[in-house]
Amino acid sequence: MFAKTEFEGLEVGYDVPALPGMDEKDIQTPCLILDLDALERNIRKMGDYAKAHNMRHRAHGKMHKSVDVMKLQERLGGASGVCCQKVSEAEVFVRGGIKDVLVSNQVRDPAKIDRLARLPKLGSRILVCVDDVANVADLSAAAQKHGTTLECLVEIDCGAGRCGVKTADAVVEIAQAIAAAPGLKFSGIQAYQGAMQHIESFEDRQAKIDIAVTQVKEAVAALEAVNLQPKLVTGGGTGSYYFESTSGVYNELQCGSYAFMDADYGRIRDKNGNRIDQGEWENALFILTSVMSHAKPQLAVVDAGLKAQSVDSGLPVIHGRSDVKYVKCSDEHGNVEDLGGVLRINEKLRLVPGHCDPTCNVHDWYVGVRNGKVETLWPVSARGKAY
Amino acid sequence: MFAKTEFEGLEVGYDVPALPGMDEKDIQTPCLILDLDALERNIRKMGDYAKAHNMRHRAHGKMHKSVDVMKLQERLGGASGVCCQKVSEAEVFVRGGIKDVLVSNQVRDPAKIDRLARLPKLGSRILVCVDDVANVADLSAAAQKHGTTLECLVEIDCGAGRCGVKTADAVVEIAQAIAAAPGLKFSGIQAYQGAMQHIESFEDRQAKIDIAVTQVKEAVAALEAVNLQPKLVTGGGTGSYYFESTSGVYNELQCGSYAFMDADYGRIRDKNGNRIDQGEWENALFILTSVMSHAKPQLAVVDAGLKAQSVDSGLPVIHGRSDVKYVKCSDEHGNVEDLGGVLRINEKLRLVPGHCDPTCNVHDWYVGVRNGKVETLWPVSARGKAY
Repeated sequence: MFAKTEFEGLEVGYDVPALPGMDEKDIQTPCLILDLDALERNIRKMGDYAKAHNMRHRAHGKMHKSVDVMKLQERLGGASGVCCQKVSEAEVFVRGGIKDVLVSNQVRDPAKIDRLARLPKLGSRILVCVDDVANVADLSAAAQKHGTTLECLVEIDCGAGRCGVKTADAVVEIAQAIAAAPGLKFSGIQAYQGAMQHIESFEDRQAKIDIAVTQVKEAVAALEAVNLQPKLVTGGGTGSYYFESTSGVYNELQCGSYAFMDADYGRIRDKNGNRIDQGEWENALFILTSVMSHAKPQLAVVDAGLKAQSVDSGLPVIHGRSDVKYVKCSDEHGNVEDLGGVLRINEKLRLVPGHCDPTCNVHDWYVGVRNGKVETLWPVSARGKAY
Repeated sequence: MFAKTEFEGLEVGYDVPALPGMDEKDIQTPCLILDLDALERNIRKMGDYAKAHNMRHRAHGKMHKSVDVMKLQERLGGASGVCCQKVSEAEVFVRGGIKDVLVSNQVRDPAKIDRLARLPKLGSRILVCVDDVANVADLSAAAQKHGTTLECLVEIDCGAGRCGVKTADAVVEIAQAIAAAPGLKFSGIQAYQGAMQHIESFEDRQAKIDIAVTQVKEAVAALEAVNLQPKLVTGGGTGSYYFESTSGVYNELQCGSYAFMDADYGRIRDKNGNRIDQGEWENALFILTSVMSHAKPQLAVVDAGLKAQSVDSGLPVIHGRSDVKYVKCSDEHGNVEDLGGVLRINEKLRLVPGHCDPTCNVHDWYVGVRNGKVETLWPVSARGKAY
């Protein structure tokens, strides 16, 4: 927890949305709030699950972009490290003291490769994904230049349809190139099925992951046939971790959204057909917003629009209310249908964002609340770190 | 232009995407770049138009959130001030030296009202919108407390379906309350037709604005009947400014997107049926992105996804290329269809964002380029200022 003195000189409303010790009702909106009790329960639950299934859990830091949340995931959830998508994010986590950092993405730009290869000097283990044999020489040259080791995972495209190779032959070719390259170490396989995470039906998700698991098993067998043992087989998200952890081939999970939840993930179903935000995970992240106009009887306008969230995965849902509905989002406004005229000016609502990752990325602060009080503020440490 | 020394100690890639003097090809991606020649031409053109039509032009700062762009709009475009949507944005523009600042929105939260009422002490004229007579006493009390004057515009909802009142009677009631309130000054009418700006057909937009103009004229007549002369009648955007400026009732424009352009605005048509980004305005804003994976022959993956832009108004368009197409956006990746396999790893593309306002709000810097060189960096001064 931050001490109050760390915020000296910061102006509420201009620099920060709140200060520790304030009542929740005095928080300046719109801003992100974290229900710390719910967050801690989510983090402990995933940690317990991973431990019970003998899986490492590398928490996905691209979701929250926060060193403080990551440290909570290490402390309460036994997280074995972080994954992130950008070199600049990795720099933030390394500088913040995280000791095991995977850039679960390709790094091709020469300046970025150079920055990545410098990072192990700060005392962290650094891993990166590779999906092109032509990348290997560049990574190797940079690691040698800096006298460091970069651990490399070959990325398999197991259904996301984006980066990654599709065949066991291609995996072996790249892995052999890595194993032969000075300064690099072949450490395993990255196989994250991103496209299936948000499919509503449990059985449909399972069918997709079965294909992925078959692909990964073939790749592992092909690697073993040439005496390359993948130490890490890593992947899995909030919509699939139970599949990877019982697959017999993955040994590390990469879940992110479970910690905060969002409206789009919340809609998917568990094996009993229940929404995963109704028992499996709790909503811990909210956009706090205020009613700032109610000039028409059945329309309240709130202060959280497109500059306070991303609506790529749908509109936010008003938490705990069935009498009012967020129906339209413009730059700085949200239109809330209020058929009963129940909302009052300055009334605050908690919005569950449609998609947590890009929503967190527009905010500078998380306001941690417990029992109606602001307990802490955490910077969104890697906000805007897109390079 | 910034001197290079202002950036001392900043690390390219971590702190900033580029430094002045660099070649455009060395800029770290993804980031926002501004074609300074195109930007200056857009700004001069709107300035010339407003002057020729005897209109004030209050440039909309919510779009760029940049003190530097605003100052260029004053210097080259004769802008008469700025409008913005949030008190925290107003604070940024006032602290940055802009002397005439309208918060074209309602301010209801007591802490925000207090901050707003303090602003005139810094030497700027401050205006704000009102759509509820109950707001008047709070604004008045705060202005009296700080010994300042807040100028108030009554907001008319002329089709946006959001904030604002719908009848001339309601306008008069609020205007009279403002005129009678110590510390406040009734200064006119805010009537921005936001919903019609993006309608493709010129004639359909004209039909919508005709309704708005009728409403505004009725309100002005009703105000004059009670001896309240609205000094300012303000509104108008990039898709409508020619209507307001020839309406005989508006005397101030509030255009924003014309300066940067975006893909959604670009699609609307001028009176000759041409796209407005084909002659009327130039694309000056781009997301610079790099190819970072091409593991499949017909699919290039670029490094600009949802954390580098907002896709609320559609996907970005690749500028100047008809051979490749941005077809899918995920958190950190863009999928680019490359049927001819023409793109190379690290090749840079300029994306025209779907919607400029919320796209600018995820970035910390504008990189100003001219003739292939980085000329300047401007901070997105009010980025994240959503409170």
